Amino acid sequence: MGPHPAVAAIRLAVRRVLHDVLTDVQRSSENDPPRPPHEQASSPLVLVACSGGADSMALASALAFEAPKLGMRAGGITVDHGLQHGSDLRAAEVLVRLTALGLAPVESVAVAVGRDGGPEAAARDARYAALDAAAERHSAAAVLLGHTRDDQAETVLLGLARGSGIRSLSGMAATSGVAGRYRRPFLHLDRQTARKACMVQSLPVWDDPHNADPAYTRSRLRHEGLPALEKALGKGVVEALARTAQLSRDDADALDTWAAQAETAVRDATGLLECAKLYALPPAVRRRIVRRAAIDAGAPAGSLFARHIEEVDRLITGWRGQGAINLPGKVVAQRQGGRLVIRQG
Amino acid sequence: MGPHPAVAAIRLAVRRVLHDVLTDVQRSSENDPPRPPHEQASSPLVLVACSGGADSMALASALAFEAPKLGMRAGGITVDHGLQHGSDLRAAEVLVRLTALGLAPVESVAVAVGRDGGPEAAARDARYAALDAAAERHSAAAVLLGHTRDDQAETVLLGLARGSGIRSLSGMAATSGVAGRYRRPFLHLDRQTARKACMVQSLPVWDDPHNADPAYTRSRLRHEGLPALEKALGKGVVEALARTAQLSRDDADALDTWAAQAETAVRDATGLLECAKLYALPPAVRRRIVRRAAIDAGAPAGSLFARHIEEVDRLITGWRGQGAINLPGKVVAQRQGGRLVIRQG
Repeated sequence: MGPHPAVAAIRLAVRRVLHDVLTDVQRSSENDPPRPPHEQASSPLVLVACSGGADSMALASALAFEAPKLGMRAGGITVDHGLQHGSDLRAAEVLVRLTALGLAPVESVAVAVGRDGGPEAAARDARYAALDAAAERHSAAAVLLGHTRDDQAETVLLGLARGSGIRSLSGMAATSGVAGRYRRPFLHLDRQTARKACMVQSLPVWDDPHNADPAYTRSRLRHEGLPALEKALGKGVVEALARTAQLSRDDADALDTWAAQAETAVRDATGLLECAKLYALPPAVRRRIVRRAAIDAGAPAGSLFARHIEEVDRLITGWRGQGAINLPGKVVAQRQGGRLVIRQG
Repeated sequence: MGPHPAVAAIRLAVRRVLHDVLTDVQRSSENDPPRPPHEQASSPLVLVACSGGADSMALASALAFEAPKLGMRAGGITVDHGLQHGSDLRAAEVLVRLTALGLAPVESVAVAVGRDGGPEAAARDARYAALDAAAERHSAAAVLLGHTRDDQAETVLLGLARGSGIRSLSGMAATSGVAGRYRRPFLHLDRQTARKACMVQSLPVWDDPHNADPAYTRSRLRHEGLPALEKALGKGVVEALARTAQLSRDDADALDTWAAQAETAVRDATGLLECAKLYALPPAVRRRIVRRAAIDAGAPAGSLFARHIEEVDRLITGWRGQGAINLPGKVVAQRQGGRLVIRQG
């Protein structure tokens, strides 16, 4: 008798990703110069980032099962954000559980969470910095993250609330980070499957009280927003949001490529943007070039909103002698002699 | 003392659109051959489509106020869908109210609503067919529709639930229909402003019971889905959704343009799609070409889902000798000698 369908599903998802990681490792080692014997590469190590919650515990269990079959080593990292009383004990407990699954090395990393960008963003920044450092320290070939399709749906809705275009609808990538370090095997799997897989494997899991705390936007979305949306629109909403993420990502990538190619053609000999040539481009491409120019001039991407870009765009499409436009980061955009000049003021 | 801010807002929105309509009328009449005196064009007529609800009554009142100032005539059409008992009396009442506002001509049109695509789609199809016919009959320069920013937000969420990409996120266009006949002056105005404008002008309005009927998806979205989303994500959600619509529309237009241009380059001398050339395109562009080819071969656009296109795409990107793929409308896609052949089977 094979494993429970939920266990089969999580293992298949992990196996596919490990295959990809292995292919990448072999491809890159073919390009390496031959090494002396004492530096021979050992079998590649894949780490799982594990909070002790159901998603990442399921991921850890599948990694522990699949990695040896492909001649890979499986390890685990848990990040202690220090935001709750006893979080250090919690991290120690996760280490015990990861070790029990057969993962080695396992490591707990304590981080100091700042305040930049709100509590959720600050915790995320600290977490990824710690995971990056751990990956370097252990020369890991990849770090697996337990984000599910439900997390992806929530991320799309969070992006939708920003109203800043299709890039923010594209959610999390299946592969991201330096050299594609981070992999998300469960991005097409629902949260329920991960929970079920833990249950049938008798894996103890921890429910982070933050996940149910209505002070957090994502938690409100998970427990109130998305269920209400499902009630209104039907059960397929989560899947539709996840598919929207993938399609939006591909679309945004294509338009970024177009904008990058078009940009060289709309600059004059001195490198300034020519308004007449910008005007001839589709609005979607023109606005991306304008946005990129503002960021290159020093405007912080996170503070640059659609309305800023629209105002600059009117210097091109609705020119009636407007004055200079102030953008975030003390960047100024103005039209001079048929050229769009964007620079730090 | 000027008008109430809500009244000023609806009038400004209508004035801007009437200016555009007038410009278009003048531009097209410049190209017309001179007419004999008895055919001299009278002042252009703009119709409002009015259900008697707050949005379209506000629109009718603003049209009645602004049109004469621009030398235009203002008329009104109300559509009797015959779906509720007494809907004919309702329509007659709307005519009285439109006439009281000074609109002429005013007309009530009874339609027979079919069943294709569900009750909401069938009612919409019947309504637009009737409005098209009325516009032709009266030689109207434009038909104004009362959709607000809130309607737009709902439309984006309905599109999101389909999960079929950014075109379905682009909501309703400010201008649509044959020769840009339909105009939506209130697309950037919230529903509350329209209601307020009716109230301060003492205009009686009718609340369509369908709008509160939870049997309708849009009604559930309006009364449950969107409020829950606002509670989770904050008050700016409606505005963010409306902005997403505009940005998605521009992006989808640009990518359609790219796909149309690329398509001629990926066909061989006999007009067949070359897989190697398709492979070299960004996925977003390639999938649009594939989708267009399937529709041209007879697949109904509404039944062609992202998963269909993905499967055909794998004939290009993941070729391992797969067989023919069946698409809706008895269309078959297969790879033959490095060509992608899509035709009715």
